[in-house]
Amino acid sequence: MDGSHWLSMHPLVEKLTENGHDVVVVIPESSLTMGGSETFTVQTYPVPYTSQEITANFQKLSREHFSLPSHFPWIAIEMLDSMMVVFNMFYKSFCKSLLSNAELIQNLKDEKFDALMTDPFSLCGTILAEYLDMPTVMFLRGMPCSFDYISGQCPTPLSYVPRIFTQYTDKMTFAQRVKNVLVRMLELLYCRLSYSSWLQIASDFLKKDVTVEELLSRTSIWLLRYDFIFEFPKPIMPNMVFIGGINCKPGKPLSKSMEDFVNSSGEHGFVVFSLGSMVSEIPMDKAMDIAEAFRSIPQTVIWRYTGKVPSNLGSNTHLVKWLPQNDLLAHPKARAFITHAGSHGIYEGICNAVPMVMLPLFGDQMDNAKRIESRGAGVTLNVLDMTPEDLINALDSVINKPSYKENIQRLSALHLDRPIHPLDLAVHWVEFVMRHKGAPHLRPAAHDLNWIQYHSLDVFAFLLAVLVTTFFISFKCCTYTCRRCCGRKSRPKSKSKKE
Amino acid sequence: MDGSHWLSMHPLVEKLTENGHDVVVVIPESSLTMGGSETFTVQTYPVPYTSQEITANFQKLSREHFSLPSHFPWIAIEMLDSMMVVFNMFYKSFCKSLLSNAELIQNLKDEKFDALMTDPFSLCGTILAEYLDMPTVMFLRGMPCSFDYISGQCPTPLSYVPRIFTQYTDKMTFAQRVKNVLVRMLELLYCRLSYSSWLQIASDFLKKDVTVEELLSRTSIWLLRYDFIFEFPKPIMPNMVFIGGINCKPGKPLSKSMEDFVNSSGEHGFVVFSLGSMVSEIPMDKAMDIAEAFRSIPQTVIWRYTGKVPSNLGSNTHLVKWLPQNDLLAHPKARAFITHAGSHGIYEGICNAVPMVMLPLFGDQMDNAKRIESRGAGVTLNVLDMTPEDLINALDSVINKPSYKENIQRLSALHLDRPIHPLDLAVHWVEFVMRHKGAPHLRPAAHDLNWIQYHSLDVFAFLLAVLVTTFFISFKCCTYTCRRCCGRKSRPKSKSKKE
Repeated sequence: MDGSHWLSMHPLVEKLTENGHDVVVVIPESSLTMGGSETFTVQTYPVPYTSQEITANFQKLSREHFSLPSHFPWIAIEMLDSMMVVFNMFYKSFCKSLLSNAELIQNLKDEKFDALMTDPFSLCGTILAEYLDMPTVMFLRGMPCSFDYISGQCPTPLSYVPRIFTQYTDKMTFAQRVKNVLVRMLELLYCRLSYSSWLQIASDFLKKDVTVEELLSRTSIWLLRYDFIFEFPKPIMPNMVFIGGINCKPGKPLSKSMEDFVNSSGEHGFVVFSLGSMVSEIPMDKAMDIAEAFRSIPQTVIWRYTGKVPSNLGSNTHLVKWLPQNDLLAHPKARAFITHAGSHGIYEGICNAVPMVMLPLFGDQMDNAKRIESRGAGVTLNVLDMTPEDLINALDSVINKPSYKENIQRLSALHLDRPIHPLDLAVHWVEFVMRHKGAPHLRPAAHDLNWIQYHSLDVFAFLLAVLVTTFFISFKCCTYTCRRCCGRKSRPKSKSKKE
Repeated sequence: MDGSHWLSMHPLVEKLTENGHDVVVVIPESSLTMGGSETFTVQTYPVPYTSQEITANFQKLSREHFSLPSHFPWIAIEMLDSMMVVFNMFYKSFCKSLLSNAELIQNLKDEKFDALMTDPFSLCGTILAEYLDMPTVMFLRGMPCSFDYISGQCPTPLSYVPRIFTQYTDKMTFAQRVKNVLVRMLELLYCRLSYSSWLQIASDFLKKDVTVEELLSRTSIWLLRYDFIFEFPKPIMPNMVFIGGINCKPGKPLSKSMEDFVNSSGEHGFVVFSLGSMVSEIPMDKAMDIAEAFRSIPQTVIWRYTGKVPSNLGSNTHLVKWLPQNDLLAHPKARAFITHAGSHGIYEGICNAVPMVMLPLFGDQMDNAKRIESRGAGVTLNVLDMTPEDLINALDSVINKPSYKENIQRLSALHLDRPIHPLDLAVHWVEFVMRHKGAPHLRPAAHDLNWIQYHSLDVFAFLLAVLVTTFFISFKCCTYTCRRCCGRKSRPKSKSKKE
């Protein structure tokens, strides 16, 4: 997986290489964030598009996002749709290029790897794993339609496990629970449709028909990039390993110029603003609104922004093309973090205990923001209709109301209190799968049951049939006995009558 | 909890003390296995029975077990019944003594502990935790009726999660699945009844009515003494921590005399035989059968046995009142382990990769044995009807058929390949609960839902009502429209008729 997904997998690959493993990373020649490496081997293959084309399309996608409808369910449908556009344009195109590259596939087959690790957000790696019949480790934040939980045979009660894109918490009103069930019903249809072209690629390549669940059910270990400080507690499975915060590192000292800048507002401290690795430009009217808000706060602002400089930019606002986000958040003078609520940023905010103002744009970001907001550790704004006053008020709240700082500090303390660092945990489980050729002992027997068997519907039907039959026979026996008894009594009567 | 339960909690208490915590262990003056300590503080209270009485009753109980019916479901019912006898006799008696000891309770209240750890197999500690309103860590192998999973809001699909005492695996035939559902239905009745006197104690002490689920739902962390090398994979919850093998330690060298003895059969090696800490005597006819079997095997046998010496005891069989079980199993010449399949013994067998012949007696032992047998790492015998030949054949299989050794070695390798030792993991989570006053972030919102809400039955009923109403209104509209249309058409006809 390209984009931000690769950014969190990268440290794990580095660490595996450090541990002496031969890691081969298979990437397309043109990509957003993936590239060569000095530590691990990179195997590239040609694709029919350039890196510039992807970047341009992503920028177009993010610009389009600023003209989205701002309310559920329309925003959810639009978001799914726009994600599917990118999917179709690049992820499927790269996948077709990979799978049709016979020489590369043969090379991969000949190498006899111990394990394959992939982010199943794009199904390409999973299809390859099925073809190469290799023990598979999934590395992900989540999947549309909860295909990860469905394929892992993990129950997700609709009464307190909110579906993706609903922006609900685990405490739902009756109306929300109804909508949650309806969303699940919609998913049954929508997800089949949206994954149908992936399945077409899979069946063409594998020469057999498969379902998404079948492909994913071969997973030995699910490395899930969250924990229950962030996610709402829900049932899990023994082969799910939670590595939220895998991207957190201790903060490094800032450069001299950056250090001078973050200190320029004295005790007021500073605010970090980034919309993530994928969005560095926004429409000018929005940029002017934001710059307007920043002008009137006492903090210094460091804003990652590559677009045209807004004319109303305040002297306290510093535009940068790239920022050392984790190092800035780790600085004692960091007062707030304005983020698009991507999972990386959220975890850097948690690790460094910096309260957040969240401007979610797409994907899981709305749901991520809801999770932090419901813990009282941040404020969510709708970037599409927010005013400068909204942003000023939100910043004022998270910086000056003690509850936000206290809550993010509590979350941070809980998150960091773990027996083993998430990166080491991830390394352990990848190596476990390599050493033991998978983890079949963690595979639930539910995989061998069909839907009716899993829910014991056949058993209940059988028991009901037995019950009904028993009642029927008992009833028949009773009526027969009654008739016999009554008959015996009545016969003499009729006899006597005759007499 | 007294008996073998305490033996596995003891190392954790020791380790917590080592880490500098003040641990107070509250125990009755008379007990089976609990006693004073040099490391942690022990607080005793008087009970209306002596240690000798408990020991005598347990010995009686184990003797009685040898005259049990040997087949399911009778053995399950008998076992539950006999467990309840011990429960009523001692566990409830000690609990009443503890809870009525006003001075002790007040002292415990005044101490303001950070956390309370208890084995909920006896509910006494749980009742006390509710009264003292303390963050609670449960330490257990399991609970009758799966009260642990029910209270933890963890789904246990009846289609592949076998109920306790059924001796089924996770791969059940249709008939077994039917029985599994029936056992669950029986539990709904039986478990309420058997726990009613505990709830009476609880409501008398707490001055309010409570259910078992309510009492247990206050649990911050469940420390479960198994893992999925032993247990079948099934859904779990984020506050369940698996510490199977917590009792395993590296083997220490044997005493000179013991070392000489285990080497006396040369390359044939030796067999370890123990029926656990609770059963050291068995009826003489059974002891003679076992001695007869041992006479005819080439291995040396070390047998923990305190009863009368069987007259036919072979020269290769060594009776001991106590044996260093783990050290013996860790010896390279250990060829087989004859065990009652208690969870401690099973894990010592797994850790040291010694194949097992299992003679389960009561409690979870039948189910434990089934788990090892289904992995091909041991043979289960019914101690009630086995012959000397059965035992000879079983020993011959596990010692001489390579598959048993290979399977137990595979289980051992999987079990020992973990990022952190189970004891350190348990210590971490107890300290976590102490540091953070519980683990409320791991408490699923399901606790706030009733049964109907949890299963979304109200939502489905509502959606059904909407659907039926919509259909009904549509149908009415259609028929009305049809009638109007037909009416309009037919009226002119009747008019013309009149004309």
